[in-house]
Amino acid sequence: MSASPNAASTVAALADIRALLRKLPGPDAQALARCDAREPLLTKPPGALGRLEDISRHLAAWQGRHPPRLEVVRACVFAGNHGVAALGVSAYPAAVTEQMVANFQHGGAAINQLCRAAGITLSVEAFDLDRPTADFTRMPAMTEEECVAAFARGMASVAAGADLLVVGEMGIANTTSAAAICRALYGGHAADWTGRGTGVDDEQLRLKVEVVETGAALHAGGDALEILCRLGGREIAAMAGAILAARLARIPVILDGFVCGAAAATLAQAVPGALEHCLAGHVSAEAGHRRLLERLKLKPLLDLGMRLGEASGAALAVALVRAALACHVGMATFVQAGVSDREEPTPRA
Amino acid sequence: MSASPNAASTVAALADIRALLRKLPGPDAQALARCDAREPLLTKPPGALGRLEDISRHLAAWQGRHPPRLEVVRACVFAGNHGVAALGVSAYPAAVTEQMVANFQHGGAAINQLCRAAGITLSVEAFDLDRPTADFTRMPAMTEEECVAAFARGMASVAAGADLLVVGEMGIANTTSAAAICRALYGGHAADWTGRGTGVDDEQLRLKVEVVETGAALHAGGDALEILCRLGGREIAAMAGAILAARLARIPVILDGFVCGAAAATLAQAVPGALEHCLAGHVSAEAGHRRLLERLKLKPLLDLGMRLGEASGAALAVALVRAALACHVGMATFVQAGVSDREEPTPRA
Repeated sequence: MSASPNAASTVAALADIRALLRKLPGPDAQALARCDAREPLLTKPPGALGRLEDISRHLAAWQGRHPPRLEVVRACVFAGNHGVAALGVSAYPAAVTEQMVANFQHGGAAINQLCRAAGITLSVEAFDLDRPTADFTRMPAMTEEECVAAFARGMASVAAGADLLVVGEMGIANTTSAAAICRALYGGHAADWTGRGTGVDDEQLRLKVEVVETGAALHAGGDALEILCRLGGREIAAMAGAILAARLARIPVILDGFVCGAAAATLAQAVPGALEHCLAGHVSAEAGHRRLLERLKLKPLLDLGMRLGEASGAALAVALVRAALACHVGMATFVQAGVSDREEPTPRA
Repeated sequence: MSASPNAASTVAALADIRALLRKLPGPDAQALARCDAREPLLTKPPGALGRLEDISRHLAAWQGRHPPRLEVVRACVFAGNHGVAALGVSAYPAAVTEQMVANFQHGGAAINQLCRAAGITLSVEAFDLDRPTADFTRMPAMTEEECVAAFARGMASVAAGADLLVVGEMGIANTTSAAAICRALYGGHAADWTGRGTGVDDEQLRLKVEVVETGAALHAGGDALEILCRLGGREIAAMAGAILAARLARIPVILDGFVCGAAAATLAQAVPGALEHCLAGHVSAEAGHRRLLERLKLKPLLDLGMRLGEASGAALAVALVRAALACHVGMATFVQAGVSDREEPTPRA
């Protein structure tokens, strides 16, 4: 149950991240056992709350406490700009990243409404928006130093004491970056991983597939963290950092959509089991996301055709997590309620 | 936009229900148009909130106002006992129906926690629990008079002024009744519609299939409302009544699981379009529910393997409906937020 509040300050190179990934804490068997002991006592047939019961187990195991709690739920949204945006792979101009960050700060975006509805504290961090990453079709998007700095800042953004963390992003052209990461990590055709993002037309989609293929071919040689540096973006590295920091601090995580998933995938490829503390909040309509979740062996909680990013799908899933905990903690037991359990003999005609 | 607060008092026979079903109000085209005019102005790519956008449209169309509101969300849970319970088709004794009603009243059941989490006012109505319906393998479960009385009481339970209604049930053996209704309405094999309910073993499941087949064969000759009388239960008739009353009063409805779906199906078979004001809150793990939703052409909002009834899946879906409305109403427009829309020229390299 050791939190690692200062882990971020120890990260100055990819080797430091690899070292942290070698000492990930596992689930708390004792908290899990207490959760499993309570669940069958509650006034419902065994298993009748379906995945809500799994969610309670997840919270207990990864918070390392029973009952788990959801007093402080935080959303971290990271924003970055991408060199490949200049190639025309998005339906919106790159200036929109900064404009949307301002919208987040003024409370006008979807994620603001979703956080308010679900009792989530939102923090937004923008990374050098006036200095996009390099065009990864020509050179690495980031140097190792740039990537590690963003990763460490993402780690540092995870405040100790949160009970649940929601992770998401904003960055024009970052579905291109995410698709390139997936293509480099998992192979397949670039077209399998490349979707319409904010809504590109057929011609732009063909260009986007080319950009993804070119970048992945140029940078596919490295390991997962090197791929993150060369094809990622600062907000993507920051999400990976936040997910890792949450694991070290025993904070369960809800992943958002395709770009968040690509960030998470770099950790999962680096160390099997690195995402065991994560739930997939939803599967987005972005083409590669369902395929990615299958690779990550994560079953999404929601499937509503959303494709906005901003942590929106993950924030929506928080309501399900709150409901799961409310049932697990608040329901009466068979004995308390004087309800007959199935062990009693059934009267027959 | 005419509400029908006294419609229930006019229902004394199946013919009265049929008369109401012939004059169902349609969606409000003006409210829908205002909803569709606002949605594209909001700071997100068109369609990026997926089914949340459909939910906003549903609320506007069926409340008949824009913006829609969700100040008063009510859950009606109806409870009844079934003659076929004595045949041994449930894993729990029939006494559990009454015990669970007491549990609802004391706040200890799953639905109490879910209503609290989602800001839903719960009302519970029990129907003659000491007087189960008749064993439908031998005679009609209810006379027309009994069925119509329960239907009318379900209608009367829908308080005017609700903005959204969630409908559900409790009744040991009522998945047997629901399966028999589906088999009688849609045909197919009894086994296609019959599931494990609260968790019967293989032997009980074989018996349950036989009971469903026998009942459906005996009573399949009638029209949909006659099938409701002969194979349903009082809580099932009450749910059908509540769903109809909500339509007349312009209150959108969220349907719960298989038993609620079977109640709704009797209306849909009686009059095409009778469920247009309904959303399917979830698809349950009960075997026949997915098949039933396909027949009803309803796409569930959630798919979490729940199979509890009590309106639990529908109550959980209320969080999604609240989130949808929060986004539609609360988000800034492109103009308000100073965000570039996609019409602006994209800079290219």
